[in-house]
Amino acid sequence: MSQDTLHTSAIVIDGLVVSRWSRQVFEDMHRGGLTAVNCTCSIWEGLRDTMINLARWKRAFIDHADLIMQVRSAADIRKAKEVGKVGIILGWQNTTGFEDRLDMLPLFKDMGVSVMQLTYNTQNLVGSGCWEDRDGGLSGFGREVIHEMNRLGILVDLSHVGPKTSSDAIAHSRRPCAYTHVAALGAFNNPRNKSDAQLREIVERGGFVGVATYPPFMKTGADTTVDDCIDLFEYMINLCGEGNIGIGTDFTQGHDDAYFDWLRQDKGYARRANPGRGRAPSVKGMETLADYPRLTAAMERRGWTETRIRAVLGENWLRFLGESLEVQA
Amino acid sequence: MSQDTLHTSAIVIDGLVVSRWSRQVFEDMHRGGLTAVNCTCSIWEGLRDTMINLARWKRAFIDHADLIMQVRSAADIRKAKEVGKVGIILGWQNTTGFEDRLDMLPLFKDMGVSVMQLTYNTQNLVGSGCWEDRDGGLSGFGREVIHEMNRLGILVDLSHVGPKTSSDAIAHSRRPCAYTHVAALGAFNNPRNKSDAQLREIVERGGFVGVATYPPFMKTGADTTVDDCIDLFEYMINLCGEGNIGIGTDFTQGHDDAYFDWLRQDKGYARRANPGRGRAPSVKGMETLADYPRLTAAMERRGWTETRIRAVLGENWLRFLGESLEVQA
Repeated sequence: MSQDTLHTSAIVIDGLVVSRWSRQVFEDMHRGGLTAVNCTCSIWEGLRDTMINLARWKRAFIDHADLIMQVRSAADIRKAKEVGKVGIILGWQNTTGFEDRLDMLPLFKDMGVSVMQLTYNTQNLVGSGCWEDRDGGLSGFGREVIHEMNRLGILVDLSHVGPKTSSDAIAHSRRPCAYTHVAALGAFNNPRNKSDAQLREIVERGGFVGVATYPPFMKTGADTTVDDCIDLFEYMINLCGEGNIGIGTDFTQGHDDAYFDWLRQDKGYARRANPGRGRAPSVKGMETLADYPRLTAAMERRGWTETRIRAVLGENWLRFLGESLEVQA
Repeated sequence: MSQDTLHTSAIVIDGLVVSRWSRQVFEDMHRGGLTAVNCTCSIWEGLRDTMINLARWKRAFIDHADLIMQVRSAADIRKAKEVGKVGIILGWQNTTGFEDRLDMLPLFKDMGVSVMQLTYNTQNLVGSGCWEDRDGGLSGFGREVIHEMNRLGILVDLSHVGPKTSSDAIAHSRRPCAYTHVAALGAFNNPRNKSDAQLREIVERGGFVGVATYPPFMKTGADTTVDDCIDLFEYMINLCGEGNIGIGTDFTQGHDDAYFDWLRQDKGYARRANPGRGRAPSVKGMETLADYPRLTAAMERRGWTETRIRAVLGENWLRFLGESLEVQA
C-alpha cells in the first residue's frame, strides 16, 4: 500500500494540540489528514475566560464547518472520518476552568469538554505539577474531582502533573488515566518527561500514553528529525506495548514568544516555573500540522507493519477514547 | 372518562414554576401528575451563580432520579410521561446569566437551558422590564441575543418584559415567542398583566400564552379560587384561540418573605421595582403542586370537552415547545 493511501485511509488522532486556533491551523489539520484532535481550550483561565474560549470554539464549528466538527465520542470520531472533517475534542490542560466548583463538571461535560489535565506545571486545588520542586500529592478536593470525572466520562490527563499527584491519581481513579503528550525520561532528562516506572504504572492500570514529538523533551532538541520521533515511539512501544500508545504532538503552531512566556509562568504571570525561553522549535520537516503524512512515511521507512502504523496513528486512541468518554450512570 | 383518569393520562405541562427546589417539591410535582415543568434557575444571578444553580439541578437529576429527569425536546417530554417522571425544562427569567457574552448562548443550550425571558421586571442589556416607568425597547445587543436564541432553539419568553421591548422582540424574532406565565390586563389592572392587543400580537405571530394562575395578577386576589382560574383560561381561549394557550402557574411553593423581597428589588437588592409585599397568596385549594388535579376537575365541572382539557393541560405546550426547542442549523 502506498504511503499516501495508508495515511489518508487511516484514523489519525492527535492527543494534544495547543496551536493558535485559526482557519490556517484548521486547514493544515485537514490537509495533514487528522481525524480527531484533543484541542486545548483552557490552561490558566478561570471559569469566565474558559467559557469565552469554549464560546469561540462553538463559533468556529459554524464558521469553519467545511473543515472541522465537534466530537464527543468514538462514534462522533468515526463520523468525522466518514465526512472528511477534522473532529475537535475539547480539552483542558488544567482544572482552573471550574475554579473551586467541582459541581460544575457536568456542565462542562454537556459542553463537550472530554479531557482534563489535573494540573498544569504548578500546584492548584487538585494537586501539584511537574515543575514544582515538591509534590504533596492529590488533595481531598482532587479525589472528588477524579470521582466526578470518572462518572461523567472525562478523561484524566496527567502529562504536566507532578509525580506523586500522578501516582495518587492513577491509584485513586476508577477508570484508566492518560499521559496525552509525554516523552521518556529514560531517553532525556527533563522534569516533563516520565520515567519508565511512571509509564509502566499508568499502562498497568489500563492507561494510555500519547507520545510527544516535541523537541524540547528530546535529547536531539532543536535538531530533532521525524526519524528521531520514530525512535521515541519505538522506546514507548517497547515499554508500554503497541496497543497502549498513540500520538500527542503538543503542536504549538502559530504561537509567539509572549504566549510561551504566559505558558511558562505560574498562573500565566507569576514566577517562571518552566525555565524555557522563546518559542519551542519544530521537528525538522514537521513545521505545520499539514506535515503529518511525513510521520506515517517515516514509520513505513522504519519497516513498521501496517497494523502497527494504524494502531499508533489513531486506532489505539480511538479505542481508548471510546471507553474513556462514555458516561457511567 | 373519570377525572382521575383524564388527569393521569394527560400530558400536563406547566410553563413556569419558580418554587424552592427540594425533594418535597419534586414529590408534589410528581403527585400532581406533572409531565414537564419550565423550572426557573436564574433570575438576578450572573454567570457564576447561574452555573452554580445549574450544577444543583444536575445533582438533583441524580439524587431524585426516581421523580424527575431533565428534558430538552418534545421527544424527551414524551419519554418522561412514558417512564412516569416529571420532565424538568431548565429556564431563565432573565438574561443576566450570560452577562455581556451572548457568544456563551450555545454553551447554555448544551447544558439544556431551553427558555430565557429577556428581562426580569427592570432594564438590562437586552431591553426593559414591565415594572420600569419607561421602556426604550429592544437594544442592539438584544437583537443579537434573539438572533442567536432563534438559531439555537431557545424559546424567547416575554412575561416580565416591558411592552415596547416585547413588541420589538415579537417583530424581530424569526421564531414565535411566548408569554409563559401571564394574566389579562382586560380582567385586572396590573403592570405585569398583558393587554388584549399584546396577547393578540404574540399569537398572530405564531406565539403562545401560558396562563398564570397567580392570585396577585387577578381581581379576586387572595380570595382566588380554582374556578376563578377557569374564568381566566376562558378569557384567554376566547382571545387567543384554544390551540395557543397553556398553563404557567408561577408556583412559588416553599419560598419565604426574604425570597420575595429579593425578587421584587431591582437586581435582587436595589430599588423596590415591584411594590408587592410578603409572600404571594395561593389559589384556594391549590396550595401545593400536588393539587394540580383540582385544576382538571374544575375544567370538567365547567363542561370543557376532553379535547379542550387535554389541549390546555399540555398538548398545546408540547407542540409549541417541540417546534421552539429544535436547533436550526
